[in-house]
Amino acid sequence: MTIKQYLTKNNDTILLELTDFLAIKSISTNSTYNKDIQACANHLEIILNRIGMQETRVIQTNKHPIVYSTYHVSNHKPTVLIYGHYDVQPADPLDLWHSDPFKATIIDEYIYARGVSDDKGQVYCHIKAIEYLLKTTGTLPVNIVMIIEGEEEIGSPNLAPFLKEYQEKLKADVAVISDTPIINKDQPALCFSLRGMVYAEITVTGPNKDLHSGQYGGIVQNPIQALARIIANLKDENDRVMIPNFYDDVLSLSVKEQAYLDDIGIDQASYLNDLGISEFAKEPPVNIAKQIWAEPTLDCNGIVGGYTEKGAKTIIPSKASAKVSMRLVANQDPNDIAEKFKAYAASLAPKGITLEIDIHSLAQPARMAIDTLYIKAASEAFKQNFGVAPKFVGEGGTIPVVADFKHILGIDTVMMGFNCPDDCIHSPNERLLLANFFKGIQTSARFLELLGKS
Amino acid sequence: MTIKQYLTKNNDTILLELTDFLAIKSISTNSTYNKDIQACANHLEIILNRIGMQETRVIQTNKHPIVYSTYHVSNHKPTVLIYGHYDVQPADPLDLWHSDPFKATIIDEYIYARGVSDDKGQVYCHIKAIEYLLKTTGTLPVNIVMIIEGEEEIGSPNLAPFLKEYQEKLKADVAVISDTPIINKDQPALCFSLRGMVYAEITVTGPNKDLHSGQYGGIVQNPIQALARIIANLKDENDRVMIPNFYDDVLSLSVKEQAYLDDIGIDQASYLNDLGISEFAKEPPVNIAKQIWAEPTLDCNGIVGGYTEKGAKTIIPSKASAKVSMRLVANQDPNDIAEKFKAYAASLAPKGITLEIDIHSLAQPARMAIDTLYIKAASEAFKQNFGVAPKFVGEGGTIPVVADFKHILGIDTVMMGFNCPDDCIHSPNERLLLANFFKGIQTSARFLELLGKS
Repeated sequence: MTIKQYLTKNNDTILLELTDFLAIKSISTNSTYNKDIQACANHLEIILNRIGMQETRVIQTNKHPIVYSTYHVSNHKPTVLIYGHYDVQPADPLDLWHSDPFKATIIDEYIYARGVSDDKGQVYCHIKAIEYLLKTTGTLPVNIVMIIEGEEEIGSPNLAPFLKEYQEKLKADVAVISDTPIINKDQPALCFSLRGMVYAEITVTGPNKDLHSGQYGGIVQNPIQALARIIANLKDENDRVMIPNFYDDVLSLSVKEQAYLDDIGIDQASYLNDLGISEFAKEPPVNIAKQIWAEPTLDCNGIVGGYTEKGAKTIIPSKASAKVSMRLVANQDPNDIAEKFKAYAASLAPKGITLEIDIHSLAQPARMAIDTLYIKAASEAFKQNFGVAPKFVGEGGTIPVVADFKHILGIDTVMMGFNCPDDCIHSPNERLLLANFFKGIQTSARFLELLGKS
Repeated sequence: MTIKQYLTKNNDTILLELTDFLAIKSISTNSTYNKDIQACANHLEIILNRIGMQETRVIQTNKHPIVYSTYHVSNHKPTVLIYGHYDVQPADPLDLWHSDPFKATIIDEYIYARGVSDDKGQVYCHIKAIEYLLKTTGTLPVNIVMIIEGEEEIGSPNLAPFLKEYQEKLKADVAVISDTPIINKDQPALCFSLRGMVYAEITVTGPNKDLHSGQYGGIVQNPIQALARIIANLKDENDRVMIPNFYDDVLSLSVKEQAYLDDIGIDQASYLNDLGISEFAKEPPVNIAKQIWAEPTLDCNGIVGGYTEKGAKTIIPSKASAKVSMRLVANQDPNDIAEKFKAYAASLAPKGITLEIDIHSLAQPARMAIDTLYIKAASEAFKQNFGVAPKFVGEGGTIPVVADFKHILGIDTVMMGFNCPDDCIHSPNERLLLANFFKGIQTSARFLELLGKS
């Protein structure tokens, strides 16, 4: 039986099972839902046992459990680590949803539900692909290790410790994640570059209390002024980061990688128009794809100090603070960049204030090789099911798990997602094209089959 | 009967009347108290009639009434315009008061009540001085025009229009205000310099919505970055305002004025220590009195943009804004400075954002002549009652009414206050030294007597 026949035959059952999975309110950020989180992990255990995985366990962590499941075929076959997450974002604001976020609803070719794209629906693609392969061939073309965590939406605090502790049981040749969007419903994509991050908070303290700006203005250093001086000097007029030696370790793109990004062909006029701005921060020529995916940058994400309500109040505040994130690319080291940032910010601090810098988080960047058997198999699987070869793209944000797989387990990740950029993840009316859900199952199965033959 | 005898004899009555006046909750900022405001104006009308003023009227404005009262003696005598305000700040937080804010309470030589220093108690000093003069001599040594307004704590929105409308009825040779502190309980002061103000708000808008800093960072101008660049460039490293031609019209101090300010002798070490800072914003040598009272400056009073709660959120915000106040000195023109500020800020705005600047308020600076008969009389009155000549000081803040008297009525103001800097005006446990309340009555009476002889 071909997979298309299998999916047609089991269409209703598959959607019913997906609906059951999506109905569990596995919201990780709010402890009210801790029982639902546990229920969701237990539900996955039942499902994975039912489709015929050999060993499935719900492994407790310091917070939410990780579902671990394996199927071993042969030491002569490659081992694929499938990663996903069963936790979801909260559904608020509920009144903006057209349907119940926890009751999957099909409207105009889309499935609407919280988590259908991010990431339960895509996890289900892999589960159904494995089910098909096991039911129709009695075995799998490759060895499988699955880990489906429950903390992705809260920053995966227990994943890296888990990877370290279970390193031996997680040995694999490649990881696959379906949690990044394709370009549009007809154009698949494979992501080979992820940015890392340093997230810092700067607090400037001046006088020990808020002062009247008439009584003290002109003599006392104003913490907002001091902070503005630091922030202003972090980037130059052409939006280049001014931290000394910031760009030293940046790995330039190969000719081939550069060609892939040039090929993306983002329309700059409509890009500007969508954002409601008249020009970019940098002087032209601007290469959006290269800039966002393969160049590091720095942004002030928040600033606050003094009086911020309506109207006027004349104070020199005691404190002002700002949050600053740096997006890194291979081979920048977050620890090194954090130190360079701290030293440079301190050098910019004017007289009469004290400066405190906290580093909230560090994440490694990653750039994956594109000339591997795994990328070739993924590319071919996409082509056979979407009718067109995937484009190679980057991701401007941070997916720490990919860097963790690289640094802890020593493996690259194939980022093979099936949802579209406008599927409203994290927003009301999250959705997934019904056709892409089924294409996802087919592409996953084909990927595993092709890898088994390689 | 000397004034001391008069005050001793009537001590209890005077304090009871003051208590009645302080008991009225004349809070101007909250419309809940509009009836109390009206009651307070009516109460003053009764009091002023009782002490024998010739014409007293409660004049309605667009908000809170102004109490107007006159006594005409002779066209050959000078006319003194006594200004005060009967409105008070709210008393919150109530739980920090040791006694009922609206029940005057004497503890350890101080009268505690909301408004006892700012400004009802000081208004009463003049009322009781006039009462003494009328009761003991049957007339007054000078002509008096009193205006006691009810909107000082909300920025006196209806005072300037009133001064313009009633200009003919407010003709005077000099104004006197008791609403600024002396240096300490034993050292009186006369203020000859006030700073003016331009209060502006800058709003920077970038993209039409908050963006994910991973997905857009490196390509889109960040409004916080743009705002920080503008703020940072408003002052140089030595804290000097960098707006072109900002200092052009600054009136330098005369040798005599400079000598008065040098004579103040502020202890810089304890000044720094009180504020909890290690150094001033400017390179030494620093002259605090000159800097705060006779030099213009600029402060950012508030800034906000992006994510300001705890923890990390990776956004490029759509907007960021800052409030900026400029403190001006004679002869800077607030309108001119506002235009220079706007032009300069616009010139600093980087690509890819739009800039909006609102001017919230403008106030004229003022510098008063110190070699006048009025200052001489005030100085002598202080000396006779405090035992020491007053020092000449400035005020770093803005008292718009003084500039209004100068620009609308064409008269200087004698700022002859009786409260101390630590009397907690606007704070819980506002107070006034009992001795200084009575010295205030004596000083006011003596000032009028001396003016009558000059």
